[in-house]
Amino acid sequence: MEETFVPFRGIKNDLKGRLLCYKQDWTGGIRAGIRILAPTTYIFFASAIPVISFGEQLERNTGGTLTAVQTLASTALCGIIHSVIGGQPLLILGVAEPTVLMYTFMFDFVKDRKDLGQKLFLAWAGWVCVWTALLLFLLAVLGACSIINRFTRVAGELFGLLIAMLFMQQAIRGAVEEFGIPQRENTKQTALQPSWRFGNGMFALVLSFGLLLTALRSRKARSWRYGTGWFRGFIADYGVPLMVLVWTAVSYIPVNDVPRGIPRRLFSPNPWSPGAYSNWTVIKDMLNVPPLYIVGAFIPATMIAVLYYFDHSVASQLAQQKEFNLKKPASYHYDLLLLGFLVILCGLIGIPPSNGVIPQSPMHTKSLATLKHQLLRNKLVSTARKSISKNSNLGQLYRNMQEAYNGMQTPLAYETPPALGLKELKESTIQLASSGGYIDAPIDETVFDVNKDIDDLLPVEVKEQRLSNLLQASMVGCCVAAMPLLKKIPSSVLWGYFAFMAIESLPGNQFWERILLLFTAPSRRYKVLEDYHATFVETVPFKTIATFTLFQTTYLLLCFGLTWIPIAGVLFPLLIMLLVPVRQYVLPKFFKGAHLQDLDAAEYEEAPAIAFNVSFQNQDPQARVTNLDDGEILDEIITRSRGEIRLTQSPKRVYSPHVNELRGEQSPRLKGKGFEAKQTPSPGPSILGQSPRD
Amino acid sequence: MEETFVPFRGIKNDLKGRLLCYKQDWTGGIRAGIRILAPTTYIFFASAIPVISFGEQLERNTGGTLTAVQTLASTALCGIIHSVIGGQPLLILGVAEPTVLMYTFMFDFVKDRKDLGQKLFLAWAGWVCVWTALLLFLLAVLGACSIINRFTRVAGELFGLLIAMLFMQQAIRGAVEEFGIPQRENTKQTALQPSWRFGNGMFALVLSFGLLLTALRSRKARSWRYGTGWFRGFIADYGVPLMVLVWTAVSYIPVNDVPRGIPRRLFSPNPWSPGAYSNWTVIKDMLNVPPLYIVGAFIPATMIAVLYYFDHSVASQLAQQKEFNLKKPASYHYDLLLLGFLVILCGLIGIPPSNGVIPQSPMHTKSLATLKHQLLRNKLVSTARKSISKNSNLGQLYRNMQEAYNGMQTPLAYETPPALGLKELKESTIQLASSGGYIDAPIDETVFDVNKDIDDLLPVEVKEQRLSNLLQASMVGCCVAAMPLLKKIPSSVLWGYFAFMAIESLPGNQFWERILLLFTAPSRRYKVLEDYHATFVETVPFKTIATFTLFQTTYLLLCFGLTWIPIAGVLFPLLIMLLVPVRQYVLPKFFKGAHLQDLDAAEYEEAPAIAFNVSFQNQDPQARVTNLDDGEILDEIITRSRGEIRLTQSPKRVYSPHVNELRGEQSPRLKGKGFEAKQTPSPGPSILGQSPRD
Repeated sequence: MEETFVPFRGIKNDLKGRLLCYKQDWTGGIRAGIRILAPTTYIFFASAIPVISFGEQLERNTGGTLTAVQTLASTALCGIIHSVIGGQPLLILGVAEPTVLMYTFMFDFVKDRKDLGQKLFLAWAGWVCVWTALLLFLLAVLGACSIINRFTRVAGELFGLLIAMLFMQQAIRGAVEEFGIPQRENTKQTALQPSWRFGNGMFALVLSFGLLLTALRSRKARSWRYGTGWFRGFIADYGVPLMVLVWTAVSYIPVNDVPRGIPRRLFSPNPWSPGAYSNWTVIKDMLNVPPLYIVGAFIPATMIAVLYYFDHSVASQLAQQKEFNLKKPASYHYDLLLLGFLVILCGLIGIPPSNGVIPQSPMHTKSLATLKHQLLRNKLVSTARKSISKNSNLGQLYRNMQEAYNGMQTPLAYETPPALGLKELKESTIQLASSGGYIDAPIDETVFDVNKDIDDLLPVEVKEQRLSNLLQASMVGCCVAAMPLLKKIPSSVLWGYFAFMAIESLPGNQFWERILLLFTAPSRRYKVLEDYHATFVETVPFKTIATFTLFQTTYLLLCFGLTWIPIAGVLFPLLIMLLVPVRQYVLPKFFKGAHLQDLDAAEYEEAPAIAFNVSFQNQDPQARVTNLDDGEILDEIITRSRGEIRLTQSPKRVYSPHVNELRGEQSPRLKGKGFEAKQTPSPGPSILGQSPRD
Repeated sequence: MEETFVPFRGIKNDLKGRLLCYKQDWTGGIRAGIRILAPTTYIFFASAIPVISFGEQLERNTGGTLTAVQTLASTALCGIIHSVIGGQPLLILGVAEPTVLMYTFMFDFVKDRKDLGQKLFLAWAGWVCVWTALLLFLLAVLGACSIINRFTRVAGELFGLLIAMLFMQQAIRGAVEEFGIPQRENTKQTALQPSWRFGNGMFALVLSFGLLLTALRSRKARSWRYGTGWFRGFIADYGVPLMVLVWTAVSYIPVNDVPRGIPRRLFSPNPWSPGAYSNWTVIKDMLNVPPLYIVGAFIPATMIAVLYYFDHSVASQLAQQKEFNLKKPASYHYDLLLLGFLVILCGLIGIPPSNGVIPQSPMHTKSLATLKHQLLRNKLVSTARKSISKNSNLGQLYRNMQEAYNGMQTPLAYETPPALGLKELKESTIQLASSGGYIDAPIDETVFDVNKDIDDLLPVEVKEQRLSNLLQASMVGCCVAAMPLLKKIPSSVLWGYFAFMAIESLPGNQFWERILLLFTAPSRRYKVLEDYHATFVETVPFKTIATFTLFQTTYLLLCFGLTWIPIAGVLFPLLIMLLVPVRQYVLPKFFKGAHLQDLDAAEYEEAPAIAFNVSFQNQDPQARVTNLDDGEILDEIITRSRGEIRLTQSPKRVYSPHVNELRGEQSPRLKGKGFEAKQTPSPGPSILGQSPRD
């Protein structure tokens, strides 16, 4: 994606790209069949549970003006609209923690003004939304998103880790509060006597840790030794929601003597009660806001606009990392424009606006990659079995599998011929087979182990479609109706779920892995290389890695500290945005260019890349590969086993676009078991705009 | 060991064998230095904690006549005597659950008799001990232990799993009882109000699961990625006691409002209080027991004698499995004789007798194998480093390492030249190196990775000595003095520890692994082969494995059910003993001999073994190996990577003694990481008597 600020060009490009695959976005989702429910439920829970909790937080902070009903409604409404007419359907929308913080600050400001007061809070917030939306329109139209390439790993991963810390903080705070007296409750209740509070707190610990540990385990069910494949797949797909059910059931076990209210459960108003809808008509009050405050609303609006611009784009970027090998184009500008409309809509009906959320968006892509992997795998396994039963030789087998693979590819009008991944591996495997002398012999399971070898063959691919997003948003909408049911979930299960989400977002975050590396015994550092395909361990001196990581950690702690400061806390998005120029202008003064490139590849530092990109843009990808000389192909085959391509003869990175491309298409192969844990959802050096997707 | 029933012959052989290495038993222990404390503390906790809990159980069941002070005293006294003058110092003695059951039945019988009553209970129990001891003398003298070879895997592993179930049952029962009102307490206490009992129970769950999970984790610390090697080693060695300390500290965190008595802690009388020693003078009362009861005491004595004969021998057998490659001889007969004396001694001073315990005894050997591995490893690594720095070639390196290895071997007077293990692997590696053409080149770390390759070279060896046993028994003795300190441990930590011991005893139990195999997806069964070197998965049809395992499971459940029946429960050792003839005479009618042999190798079914054994007994072990033809050696090299040697051309098992021997010496190679988990402490087909150890 080139950096261009011609008005409307970015939006036009986005629309053009996404319209081409719009139909396929739906047909692809529908053709996935019932299995689409796995990523859908997974993301639905990841989306709904925090939103409910944020709703409770808002309720406390706004004197009951906004509740979980409103946050759920906003998430559902924006989610449905985005999934239908949005650009990037991998992006998940929801009310996020920063929005809650902003609304809290705004309420604190409003409640003490005589001419506004709690009554006009939503009306004033409506004005803030209007201003925010206008700013977002401006940013979208002027192409502000085209600088997304400058949001390198270092900023995106820092933001991801900050969100994980905020989730974990909420989990710990929530668990500790289970021992105390909740704010709004009647303190005379039996359940709030010191003895029962102690019991409640301990029970909460049991439920939270129970959920956390079992949920983490269940995600790895595919690699379990026990149970049938069907059972393991089911647990891996639906284990987390299942565990929420199981631990909710467990919370009902203590009956005799234990008073109602232990354990504490979700607290939210009944959406069916009269008066729960007073906020929907806020538009009528908006003209009652004094003109001075209408103008003043511009100040918080700028903060929110900056926040949404960054948050929405980074969430989208994290959902489209190059490791995922996405086929369909990005849509930053158009999505930001749409977000503007959604913010106005939310403001006018008096609910807090939603924006792209982390870690749910990358979680969504990851779960769709697992889905696509299974679909491809099933097809290839049956093809391979058929070939073997026909006594084909290895060459025929691969031809058949290639055909089946191509048949599964998204047939996009503009797209280049599919599938470097399978083809190349096929060649290298055939090469090995020839040298072994069994290329023409009829194959059996000893030469080609159907189950294992196909896992090695498959590249990462994502089932890109709109259905899962639409369905999860609709299910969030159903939550509003199902509030009486949701209230049965103990709040402690929710804290466990928060901790689960924080931990689930860590693997693949290279920043996190580098922090761990600092604590890794020197003799075991090679394991990092094995597990995460982290080439930087080999190319960058440990001392440099340590310095870089310590700098990043300090920066992270600064950001985290800032969120604790009552009013200034609102500025924390600015501090993260500041990291972009810091990375571009300050860091190169302290670190060698090559090292920086390995730790945090920035596109703007790769001069030859653009030239190459332009000239090769319309060529057949096959041609690009043959452009590599034999030595490279050999080197590639040798280093492939490590899961990442490293070109030993390119210290000056002349071929780096090649490398990136090969990396992007080959490195994060699904290794079958433990995929969820090992996949690297790290925001790569934004190659997003370099491929045919631009 | 041949089956001979000539009086005293077994005892004489045992004494002769053990006297030869008696001095080395001490010097070897002392030379291990400070590291001997790792297995010592590990076993001390495994020994003391259950004994304390059994003491509490006895106290409830005998109206306070016997307490933890007495069970600890018995364990310490018998342990010290056995470690000094006992035969097999790997065997750990302690008051065991079956003894507690027996004493409970005896007390129930006595307390209602007018002419005995609670006052004369210990005196009568003294008579029972006298009779038991006489029976044990008889069994020992007549060589009853020489049929130990008939106690095959099937019986030993069933007993091991039964003990694990009893431990787990105690853990669950204990945790559940934390919610209830304890028997002896004043029910008016604040801590026993329903609300506080609920809190206490929940806190107990937190503490129990906390201990269980962290203890299980800490045992695997050596393979952690994080922390220095020293730190990881320390956690792996001392993690379990450390976790008991940590969770005891955690139990003191709740302070304000929480009444004393939450969480509940160990309850035991102060041994320093007057009257705690009344039982020591029980010998004075023994003549007050009416003669009829003196004679009647013979009936429970027979049961206890059978129990001890079986329990003591199987515990000893499990501590000396062939996988451990023990160098020093067994001592079943003499140990049984000594047990007789210990039983009399305990009876006369009014404490319950101790006997060999499961799972502590095999845990002891395992922890000593880890110790020996570390000592050998350190030596070899430094030798290899020295050779590399001197630019030696691979041949020299192996010669140097072989010398260092031999230097570490136990120099026993009668023993055959040491170390097939290292030598043979050396040859095969050199062979591979020659074919690779780098045999004479100076080596560097790429050819020979010091840290990794040495782990592969090392055979399993056990640091066989008396010091760890003596020290742990002495520490148990110190517990009596330290009772006021021990009482700070929460009882819930104890339940977690029980669960930990049950789980720790499972890996390596082939019966358990076969149960798991029934739940393993067919496509993943190959993993069992990889993980546990279980050849039977390849050689025995799955259906046969399943039938055999189901039979064994049913039998296990029968035994477990029997322990629940109040009085007949005392017969459960008989039911397990019955398995020995069932295995010998009934099972062969339902299963093919070859299958049975693979699932549960019994020596008496291997006819050619004895002839072979006799003829080769005095030859150099090197000669035995060269006796294999080249094809076998090749086959051996090929299959070695799987960790077990399988001779494809021996369906008739002509060479099976060979196989066994090779298996015994090579199969369970320490693989460095995860050793504790993967090692197979399964009671093998008793090869104990076949090797030079006889």
